[in-house]
Amino acid sequence: VDLAPLVAQLGSSGVIVDATDRARYEEPARGRRGTAAAVVRPATLEEVRAVVEWARTNQVRLLPQGANTGLVGASTPGVSSNDGEPTVVLSLERLDAGLTVDAGDRVAVVAAGTRLSALNAAAARHDLHLPIDLSADPSLGGMVATNTGGSRVLRYGSLRRHVLGAEVVFADAAVSVVTHLDAVRKDSRGLELPQLLVGSGGALGVVTRVAVALTPVPEATATWWIEPRDEAAVPELLAALEQDPAHGELLSALELLSVGALEAAASHGGEGGGVPFAARRPPVVLLAEWSGPSTAIDGLERLFARLVEAGLANDAVAVPPARSWALRHGVTDALRVRGVVLGHDVATPRRALMAFRADARAAVQALVPRAEVSDFGHVGDGGLHCNVVFPHGIAPPTSAERAAIRGAIEAAVAAHGGTYSAEHGLGPLNAARWRATTPVVEQAVIAAIKRTVDPLGLLGHRDHPYNHASLGSEEKPDRA
Amino acid sequence: VDLAPLVAQLGSSGVIVDATDRARYEEPARGRRGTAAAVVRPATLEEVRAVVEWARTNQVRLLPQGANTGLVGASTPGVSSNDGEPTVVLSLERLDAGLTVDAGDRVAVVAAGTRLSALNAAAARHDLHLPIDLSADPSLGGMVATNTGGSRVLRYGSLRRHVLGAEVVFADAAVSVVTHLDAVRKDSRGLELPQLLVGSGGALGVVTRVAVALTPVPEATATWWIEPRDEAAVPELLAALEQDPAHGELLSALELLSVGALEAAASHGGEGGGVPFAARRPPVVLLAEWSGPSTAIDGLERLFARLVEAGLANDAVAVPPARSWALRHGVTDALRVRGVVLGHDVATPRRALMAFRADARAAVQALVPRAEVSDFGHVGDGGLHCNVVFPHGIAPPTSAERAAIRGAIEAAVAAHGGTYSAEHGLGPLNAARWRATTPVVEQAVIAAIKRTVDPLGLLGHRDHPYNHASLGSEEKPDRA
Repeated sequence: VDLAPLVAQLGSSGVIVDATDRARYEEPARGRRGTAAAVVRPATLEEVRAVVEWARTNQVRLLPQGANTGLVGASTPGVSSNDGEPTVVLSLERLDAGLTVDAGDRVAVVAAGTRLSALNAAAARHDLHLPIDLSADPSLGGMVATNTGGSRVLRYGSLRRHVLGAEVVFADAAVSVVTHLDAVRKDSRGLELPQLLVGSGGALGVVTRVAVALTPVPEATATWWIEPRDEAAVPELLAALEQDPAHGELLSALELLSVGALEAAASHGGEGGGVPFAARRPPVVLLAEWSGPSTAIDGLERLFARLVEAGLANDAVAVPPARSWALRHGVTDALRVRGVVLGHDVATPRRALMAFRADARAAVQALVPRAEVSDFGHVGDGGLHCNVVFPHGIAPPTSAERAAIRGAIEAAVAAHGGTYSAEHGLGPLNAARWRATTPVVEQAVIAAIKRTVDPLGLLGHRDHPYNHASLGSEEKPDRA
Repeated sequence: VDLAPLVAQLGSSGVIVDATDRARYEEPARGRRGTAAAVVRPATLEEVRAVVEWARTNQVRLLPQGANTGLVGASTPGVSSNDGEPTVVLSLERLDAGLTVDAGDRVAVVAAGTRLSALNAAAARHDLHLPIDLSADPSLGGMVATNTGGSRVLRYGSLRRHVLGAEVVFADAAVSVVTHLDAVRKDSRGLELPQLLVGSGGALGVVTRVAVALTPVPEATATWWIEPRDEAAVPELLAALEQDPAHGELLSALELLSVGALEAAASHGGEGGGVPFAARRPPVVLLAEWSGPSTAIDGLERLFARLVEAGLANDAVAVPPARSWALRHGVTDALRVRGVVLGHDVATPRRALMAFRADARAAVQALVPRAEVSDFGHVGDGGLHCNVVFPHGIAPPTSAERAAIRGAIEAAVAAHGGTYSAEHGLGPLNAARWRATTPVVEQAVIAAIKRTVDPLGLLGHRDHPYNHASLGSEEKPDRA
């Protein structure tokens, strides 16, 4: 690959070739490391265009990468992608200048490389925030490419809902730039091009800026831990919390932790005494959050007294939000420390989640009795991280076991009308499933879009589903 | 056109050819009436497929039509569409069976022909509703095709946000049916095909069923009318209402009525005594609504006392919600009774709305001093119905004047970063503007999608923008 023209345009700090320096761009947060011919780091829109032009001229694959926190392998080379074609990581991390917050309009315009934490720090000065809550700290461009969800989707929706516009560089012959950053909140001009980029995993265009709607930081927040009567009571508890007239609309999260997930997080955090209901070890506990005016958060004690009296819950206890979320967000790391983790990011219709969960757990335990199913996730929106742990000291999963576990979980998800990718987006890790389950006409639509905005097929991981969409049988238009 | 095969399949009640019976399907809510060769009314998914197959075989244009309340001419023949090709209205009104509401999941699955009022009547039995508020009573399929907005977008978003899934019939060679009705709330499998249909005006596919998220009917609602200090104070008032810690998140509408719109509505409604601030005739008044727990709606008197003291408002008065909304929703009909109305459905970023409004009013008054600019709309989301009225008794607008007024308003919208279609969707009435202002690559994406799902170009009004999208210069893929 001839990098000289890029070095001339981006400067030497804009092009990384040294293997040691490349490492953190090549190592994915989940999956296996591959090799990039280089990492290019444009710092302006014009430099992004120059990179795309260079890639077109040199037939080089570009992997757009934000903060490299993605979990489906979309932004790193991976082991399979170097078969005969050079791959370059297009890091957007230097594209992080020019953050603006319009407090009256409640809109922020953010460069793609800006981290969620930096956006929220700037927004907090106006008592605003982007209410997406997760344990990682992704970049805004990566969040668009992923359609990030998190713990508060129940109330605020996934990132898609907050995206008012974007600036995107395409890899068509003109290297077109489309800029929709005016942040109009009511618009029915048909296709909203930025919406197409949501969840596209870097395979349709390079997002360089994003306009997002902000919401007020709530005056008060309360978190309670709940021990449900049993697993079957969980859907009824969700309904009861949502239907409470005084607090239902203020419910901002309802999370579930299996006993394995909770205990791993507690021991990892080194705070042994603080685990709710630790002595009884219930199979699942729930974490509920309410946010809103301080006067409206009152009265949760009475609500829980009613739920206990009704037999839906055994117990409930208020724990300060910071402690609650530290425990909850510590689960992912805690499981990783415990051993080999096979992660599965799934969701079903909310009504079906607990039935799915029972089926999936039974199937996995039948396949690998030695493993622990330490699942946790988002009862409030139907999402579940159905994570299977092989602790240190027992045999790690074989390749066949990994595939069998994934197959069993995804079959259970499909049987309950769910999705194999709830909030982690599309990438090589779920490409086969996408291709097997996406209707032919939907694949053909993707292929047609892809051919229009990236006719040389250079953008996104070689194994990204959009790079393997079936065009279907083409029909020639026979009228004007 | 050979209708015999359709009559055989749909029965005689499914095919209307009589000119008198056709009239209500041919007469648009805004614009001029044209002529359809027939109106076909399938009552099942299979009958919809049969109609599409018949249209493909016979090269007949199909205009999907819901409740025919649309305002951009997308669902009626129009005068220009019969040039050498037969057009048939595909009415979905008989496709209205099988409404289901899942109260625990807060999801409804609704046939395309079901009216919003019918959905909300069924949902109300579970204290739920689809919180889209407007004066018409559209069908759900039409709402998807339009991306309906209304008065509560400020809090709840346009229809797009509520669409969890859809069932769609395409006009490709297979007459594909794609069914995404599982109502998963958290999904990041990339493109969500139902999202493509939102705002597509019947030109991409025929929506036959929709899955929508429902929200709780609020325990209490309060509406207040506000006389702002002056027009310049309106953005500050919006910010002050949103930023009030106790009530800001409960704000569910902030509407603006010009004096002309308010007085027309009051006199049309025949309730002369009830117009807020009637004696002073302020140039604009605001209508604000809060919804939520009854305890949280308290204290608005104190809020308004502060706003008056701060000099942002001259006065504010509580009026019961039913009376307030009757007045507000009466505006459209009231203006129509008053004379010839030229409607313009626009939106800008919220911060720019009042500046845009001043520019647009000045431009229109300079062009046609005899007309009244009786605008009204949605300050809370940046939307405005910039309606120009030629009362009975003065000369109606000439064609040249109509075009000049539209041009001036759309130029002002563009200068303030706004949209020429805020909530009425795309259709023949705004096709020229779409084509002139939509980036080339975005048009090419639409053309590519269109060619995939409707290769014969049969769906949607002949003058719908999607039927005139430019493919751009095509580039041949030169790699696998």
